[in-house]
Amino acid sequence: QGIWTTLSQSNGKYKYDYATIPFLAEFFKLSVSSFFLWKECQSSSPPRMTKEWKSVRLYLVPSVIYLIHNNVQFATLTYVDPSTYQILGNLKIVTTGILFRLVLKRKLSNLQWMAIILLAVGTTTSQVKGCGDAPCDSVFSAPFQGYMLGILSACLSALAGVYTEYLMKKNSDSLYWQNVQLYTFGVIFNMGWLVYGDFKAGFEMGPWWQRLFNGYSITTWIVVFNLGSTGLLVSWLMKYSDNIVKVYSTSMAMLLTMVLSVYLFNVRATVQLFLGIVICIISLQMYFMPVHTLVELPQTLPATAK
Amino acid sequence: QGIWTTLSQSNGKYKYDYATIPFLAEFFKLSVSSFFLWKECQSSSPPRMTKEWKSVRLYLVPSVIYLIHNNVQFATLTYVDPSTYQILGNLKIVTTGILFRLVLKRKLSNLQWMAIILLAVGTTTSQVKGCGDAPCDSVFSAPFQGYMLGILSACLSALAGVYTEYLMKKNSDSLYWQNVQLYTFGVIFNMGWLVYGDFKAGFEMGPWWQRLFNGYSITTWIVVFNLGSTGLLVSWLMKYSDNIVKVYSTSMAMLLTMVLSVYLFNVRATVQLFLGIVICIISLQMYFMPVHTLVELPQTLPATAK
Repeated sequence: QGIWTTLSQSNGKYKYDYATIPFLAEFFKLSVSSFFLWKECQSSSPPRMTKEWKSVRLYLVPSVIYLIHNNVQFATLTYVDPSTYQILGNLKIVTTGILFRLVLKRKLSNLQWMAIILLAVGTTTSQVKGCGDAPCDSVFSAPFQGYMLGILSACLSALAGVYTEYLMKKNSDSLYWQNVQLYTFGVIFNMGWLVYGDFKAGFEMGPWWQRLFNGYSITTWIVVFNLGSTGLLVSWLMKYSDNIVKVYSTSMAMLLTMVLSVYLFNVRATVQLFLGIVICIISLQMYFMPVHTLVELPQTLPATAK
Repeated sequence: QGIWTTLSQSNGKYKYDYATIPFLAEFFKLSVSSFFLWKECQSSSPPRMTKEWKSVRLYLVPSVIYLIHNNVQFATLTYVDPSTYQILGNLKIVTTGILFRLVLKRKLSNLQWMAIILLAVGTTTSQVKGCGDAPCDSVFSAPFQGYMLGILSACLSALAGVYTEYLMKKNSDSLYWQNVQLYTFGVIFNMGWLVYGDFKAGFEMGPWWQRLFNGYSITTWIVVFNLGSTGLLVSWLMKYSDNIVKVYSTSMAMLLTMVLSVYLFNVRATVQLFLGIVICIISLQMYFMPVHTLVELPQTLPATAK
């Protein structure tokens, strides 16, 4: 995603309105899910769908959390610079672990907790500014409110993920029906966001639907479909796997993006990127490897093994 | 040690000949060990001492390895700058683990291997140059021979440690008798090094014994006694504990030195120092914590535990 987004810029700027991307991605996800739901309805065994408003309204919550999160993110960025914000963003890994334990009541061993902390440390390490990187005196120099908001932002982002997992696993409704509810609210909220943008700009550039595809190129469309497909995969992950698998996937994807950037965009490879990758790989093994392969001593002769 | 060494400088320079420090430290260790050996000989149960030359000559080996190591270190520093050398020095942790396995035939679980790699990664992370630190383009830009020599240096340094452990645990000789043999060769080799320095300088400043204490201050003596005492503790560790405990101790001491330097010498605290400390603490727990506390899931009700 990061690579396509960078490729969609021209001369380091977006020619299109970036706010239209998540709207179209939500729309794409809604269309795909509706299509599959329709196919399921045609089949011999119709899907399970809970249709009471009492259940449907729960699918509103993630959109509300994301709305609050976006505002907190905006507020945070008035206090801290983007690179510090990125560093603080890694806290999301740890807050996801905590909410995973508290909200979903999933138990983790001490080793798995250490693995989660290490993953956050690893991604942070890879992002540490090296010598020669532009702004310098920023780290740990932001006002206190900035850090508090950064932590709040990490909590909200984790909460959205954990809540979605709860929602998807709550009952055995069809995944596509759950998606349709989720993305309908997603489309509505994103539309609201575009309308709000129009109001803020005083309709100077006309309503959003008239300039929806302004400046779109083929790569912009790839960004939209990519974001949409990732979203569908995350939904699937939330239903059949869990949030921890998700943070591992996103962290690994981030590191892979950084490695590819070295080749594609001539970004300089740093020691900290290498160290971060090693840390994250070790963390991955600590979390997912079967316990016995981790702790057993190698045995040359069964009888003499210590 | 690092802090006292820094304090012993005046205006960032040594007023004394630094080569005299290890010589005097060896001499101090020899004196202390001789004294305790003498005390042991007076006691009712005399210490075990193997005196054949076949055994004694083995104590020559560490001194020889250190001599080679010093030369390799010197050669390495002609190719790489000191900060890259310091980074490469962390490889010693991994090579110690490998030789510990190969030479001493000690078995380590996968988790312990990961812990050892993490320790090396953690110490390296704490040493990564931050933005604003002076020279910049040095990382990974040294010639190939530099890295090869750095790896050789790490192997030699690990070999010396592992060999000493083998030596100390080989038989149940008195620790003090083993020390006396070790440090006698240490004193001789260090003396040889000073004489060699005199030859190289063409005796311009007179023989080494005439200027042994030139420029010594109270802090210089503290450096000597501190180095000597550390050496005695390491000997003890090699006999009754092992090399892995030693690398953990020295790594933690390095991190503590860096933290104290922030307060004492107004060095700037960096994110990477903080991250390095977290990594090393996790590594410590992974290596030394009893396996069951690491992998067991917390149990609220024994019957429902997953």
